[in-house]
Amino acid sequence: MINTDTKLGIQIKPLYDFESGTWTYLLLDIKSKQAVLIDPVIENLDRDLQLIETMEYKLVATIETHMHADHITAAGELRDKSGCDSYVPHLSGASCATHFLKENDTISIGELNLKVLHTPGHTPCSISLVLNEMYVFTGDTLFVRGCGRTDFQGGSADSLYHSITKKLFSLPDDTIVFPGHDYKGFVSSTIGEEKHWNPRIANRTLEDFKSIMDNLNLPEPKKIHEAVPANRKCGKMI
Amino acid sequence: MINTDTKLGIQIKPLYDFESGTWTYLLLDIKSKQAVLIDPVIENLDRDLQLIETMEYKLVATIETHMHADHITAAGELRDKSGCDSYVPHLSGASCATHFLKENDTISIGELNLKVLHTPGHTPCSISLVLNEMYVFTGDTLFVRGCGRTDFQGGSADSLYHSITKKLFSLPDDTIVFPGHDYKGFVSSTIGEEKHWNPRIANRTLEDFKSIMDNLNLPEPKKIHEAVPANRKCGKMI
Repeated sequence: MINTDTKLGIQIKPLYDFESGTWTYLLLDIKSKQAVLIDPVIENLDRDLQLIETMEYKLVATIETHMHADHITAAGELRDKSGCDSYVPHLSGASCATHFLKENDTISIGELNLKVLHTPGHTPCSISLVLNEMYVFTGDTLFVRGCGRTDFQGGSADSLYHSITKKLFSLPDDTIVFPGHDYKGFVSSTIGEEKHWNPRIANRTLEDFKSIMDNLNLPEPKKIHEAVPANRKCGKMI
Repeated sequence: MINTDTKLGIQIKPLYDFESGTWTYLLLDIKSKQAVLIDPVIENLDRDLQLIETMEYKLVATIETHMHADHITAAGELRDKSGCDSYVPHLSGASCATHFLKENDTISIGELNLKVLHTPGHTPCSISLVLNEMYVFTGDTLFVRGCGRTDFQGGSADSLYHSITKKLFSLPDDTIVFPGHDYKGFVSSTIGEEKHWNPRIANRTLEDFKSIMDNLNLPEPKKIHEAVPANRKCGKMI
């Protein structure tokens, strides 16, 4: 079911980047043969394009959930090769893009109907994308049994707690969660599961959450000084 | 949708092992809170048990698709801890198990209805498992855009070609394929996709396929001498 919902006329294909633990999502509109990539990774450019082209789909858009610190986006290269649009969060400062996304903006491509939720916290610009009122791509806001870190790039545990508990947790419990990262071998979850069993959020007060986030002691992302400026240029430094 | 099909009363959770590239599958029967693990990996024993127990499910069965050469099963340890049944292919020689599976055997646990297909080729004992006539767990018989190797443990390219093209490809095109391994960042596929776009199988004759399989030049699996005998004892060497 992850892979196809022929009744709805769409497919969702999660694509993993082993180096950075990033999930890229390929969304397909079956009838029109149009494709969308959420958070494509530059190292997987050939894999992802080959997958799309072999199935005779046309890439029409890339969407970034935020300006990543751990990998460089393939958005610029993909636009050069396919002529697709490139969407970024309004607050990202990525003037390279063709479209800028704010709260409640919508993108409709065939039967793919995406709606933007502004979910700051991991970064101020972070967005989540609700697909057909059934799925939510949460970027680095919410992971399966985890969440994005808040200790750089203007991150805020206060904002993240609010984005998860007030905004994402307002979605129906059976909404499928597709996160921006995974490091444990998990693929997806539901809003209901994360409400009940996310160890950082379930039954935690804001103060609990801030204490957890303040004490993660994570190393700085290896690519932060390279990736963030590159991603503001859609991954193209030249 | 990968994660939950509340209309059917079941959930499917793919769980990845980063070291061996193995997919373990957790199947949940929502009403009875019973759980099944297909191809559990010993290194992930704690992760998988914690996931099941936190959600207050009871593990009632493990199922092996074949005797693995690249990782050791957690079946024995899981049985010790949870009292679950352990299913293995009839031809596996794994006398440690409690149940032995042959073509057309069925396992029913609440709304989870599994049917066994004998799909030899990667190994002579290999099976695939069809769930609720909608999903197929293909073990090392069929991967997303690939297939299991046939150069050890009695492997046979002839048998594998037959198992894939005659048996698996007889399933409906929209059957979701959950493979036993992935090394490229893919999660799942459909029978229709693999018919059309599996580079080893689509539009290939048996002779083409045998030539491809004969020239893969893969190194021997690192754990073959340890894993195969261990798996015949449900992962317990003592």
